[in-house]
Amino acid sequence: MADRYVLISTDSHAGLPAAGYREYVDSRYHREFDAAQAEAEAMREAAENDDHSKFLREWNAEIGQHGGMKGAWDPAVRTKEMDHDGVAAEVIFPDADAAGVGGVARTPFTAGLGSTGSDDAELTLAGAWAHNRWMAEFCRNSPERRAGVAIVPVHDIDAAVAMIKWSAEHGLRGGIMIPTAWGSLPSYNHPVYDPVWAAAAATGMPVHTHSGVGPNDYGVTPGLIAIYTVEAYWWAARPLWALVLGGVFERHPTLKYVLAENGAWWAPDIISRMDSKWEGDHATRKFGPAAFRSGLTMKPSEYVNRNCWYAASVMFNTEIDRRYDIGIDNLMWGSDYPHPEGSWPNTRSWLAERFGRVPEGEVRRILGLTAAQVYGIDLGALAPTVRRVGPTVADIHAAAAS
Amino acid sequence: MADRYVLISTDSHAGLPAAGYREYVDSRYHREFDAAQAEAEAMREAAENDDHSKFLREWNAEIGQHGGMKGAWDPAVRTKEMDHDGVAAEVIFPDADAAGVGGVARTPFTAGLGSTGSDDAELTLAGAWAHNRWMAEFCRNSPERRAGVAIVPVHDIDAAVAMIKWSAEHGLRGGIMIPTAWGSLPSYNHPVYDPVWAAAAATGMPVHTHSGVGPNDYGVTPGLIAIYTVEAYWWAARPLWALVLGGVFERHPTLKYVLAENGAWWAPDIISRMDSKWEGDHATRKFGPAAFRSGLTMKPSEYVNRNCWYAASVMFNTEIDRRYDIGIDNLMWGSDYPHPEGSWPNTRSWLAERFGRVPEGEVRRILGLTAAQVYGIDLGALAPTVRRVGPTVADIHAAAAS
Repeated sequence: MADRYVLISTDSHAGLPAAGYREYVDSRYHREFDAAQAEAEAMREAAENDDHSKFLREWNAEIGQHGGMKGAWDPAVRTKEMDHDGVAAEVIFPDADAAGVGGVARTPFTAGLGSTGSDDAELTLAGAWAHNRWMAEFCRNSPERRAGVAIVPVHDIDAAVAMIKWSAEHGLRGGIMIPTAWGSLPSYNHPVYDPVWAAAAATGMPVHTHSGVGPNDYGVTPGLIAIYTVEAYWWAARPLWALVLGGVFERHPTLKYVLAENGAWWAPDIISRMDSKWEGDHATRKFGPAAFRSGLTMKPSEYVNRNCWYAASVMFNTEIDRRYDIGIDNLMWGSDYPHPEGSWPNTRSWLAERFGRVPEGEVRRILGLTAAQVYGIDLGALAPTVRRVGPTVADIHAAAAS
Repeated sequence: MADRYVLISTDSHAGLPAAGYREYVDSRYHREFDAAQAEAEAMREAAENDDHSKFLREWNAEIGQHGGMKGAWDPAVRTKEMDHDGVAAEVIFPDADAAGVGGVARTPFTAGLGSTGSDDAELTLAGAWAHNRWMAEFCRNSPERRAGVAIVPVHDIDAAVAMIKWSAEHGLRGGIMIPTAWGSLPSYNHPVYDPVWAAAAATGMPVHTHSGVGPNDYGVTPGLIAIYTVEAYWWAARPLWALVLGGVFERHPTLKYVLAENGAWWAPDIISRMDSKWEGDHATRKFGPAAFRSGLTMKPSEYVNRNCWYAASVMFNTEIDRRYDIGIDNLMWGSDYPHPEGSWPNTRSWLAERFGRVPEGEVRRILGLTAAQVYGIDLGALAPTVRRVGPTVADIHAAAAS
């Protein structure tokens, strides 16, 4: 496969049509499940507007010849679309329907991307179990190409640890996703979470947070959607410094943490600020410099380089331009399939446009080889797929070279 | 004054020793004032630790020959220190004692830098009135060199508008400071604040937020102080996009907004994201692109360039390196006098080190000329002071040129 790229999408999504989850939900929660489904459907209809309807018509027309949303839960359609896009393997998060494309793929009890530590502990756990059971089944078809991510709520530490072990035993090699916002729970620098980090490190399961949650203090005010898109990256980045500055990677040196779909353009500035404080810059002296080193034997950037990765999805030129500052081996690509803000169904041309000018060796790491290491993906098992569908070096670089 | 720089510090602080405010507080709040003083003093003593005590000894030794903290409230000492540092004029915020230097200069009822919209409305207003009355008196000594900033809580819109008018009539030419965190109040993109913006625009009073508030969801957890210093800039930056994306500068085209002591290194990235969304990038389509332009006839960056400034205090090399991206006419210097994270009592050498390599014309704007325009400072009235104490062009650039 010397002339082919190994594409591993570190940000993809899958999930059942909403009603399909019912059989995976513990039957004692069926009444709550039915009520939540009805409420979600009513909310979706109430929120519909001309602008969004127009987008849905256009998007559904665009993906119609690509199985529409079916690839979110149908392994045959999904595999065909992966082949179409040249993707050899993927790390699979929940919530395939991020755009209200219509009734599909909502994690029960919204236990997926939008979940926070403020949500109902019992129902969130029930929703997570339902999704994880289904996801384990889903990945059993082509396990070499599918690394499913388990949803792991952290209200109950013992339950979280048990779920991590179950997920590892049931082949969810994508690792775990905890709520991006801790909400009313302790922040992630609190030692109460140490058993979770220990279980993830022991099983080799990368811990993820995925962007999606936003601010909760704006109400319905002018500019809200624009403000949400400006702030979303920040809310999704907070766990990074909670973990680093809270000494979590000092105590768990083999723990892997991945920030999914949150870009990485912001990382060098913020990490260099952390280092500057750790080193004791002029502004730290009034606090007493020891406060900045407590529990950290290395500089913050050293923990980040060793323990943290960015699943930066389709990636913009900013990430590519800053790839050395971000860390060339900490940056991973993802198609965000099947979300409309991703590159599907035009991943091949998208990659040529973005990466044509980047040296081949670096592109290989960003598009797949780093992910193979982080997730323990067997490149040998992928080789036949790569030979068949992987984009060639010429596919990616020919236009930029001409 | 052709060979001298006009230094205008857009971030300085003044305030009375805590007990001194008592006579400025409305007498019906004296009981609450005394109780709050006692509580604050007890908290300060309880929080003392060896690391901070060591810093205090060093800092007090360093500023001892410069009047110590006396310049925070004594006009003669302050003027002498401004002369020592080469500062012709300053914009003066509350809370001179940001480091617990000892019992001085705490705004009553913590109505100053740390105030949020969640604080008690009545006491915060009482504290603000006390400080503003004192500040108006303080600026009457050398009014050409002192532009005092009025504290304006925004719990009660009518009271805020009345206070803006009073402040304008009583010579507080520095403008107004609103709480950086709206807390439980509506966010600053809410139209409820329009009378405040209108009053500020009508009187030509720049509106400020000043860094200081931090997150409130960490509790007492490992790494808290380091996390605070990483996050503080973000909490202090939120009003910028609330105002811009909420259409405030569309409705109030002459309103001036200044972010004080929050650097500006972060601004180009975030503003270019706002522009990208306004222009309708790939990721916006699922929301319906109209949501990003609602109420905004210009690009976000155009409002920022026209209506917003950064009082970036002592400024780090990052701001200086990025000055064109930030906006060469939107960036202003400040000494942060008398805070220990500022440049006092070494402002002259600090400036030479930071600005020696920057072309003279640009340095003039950043160090004073832009501030003179924003705050309507009379350069003619300052000229004798500048001729006497202003750093010469050689002072700033000689070392870098050699």
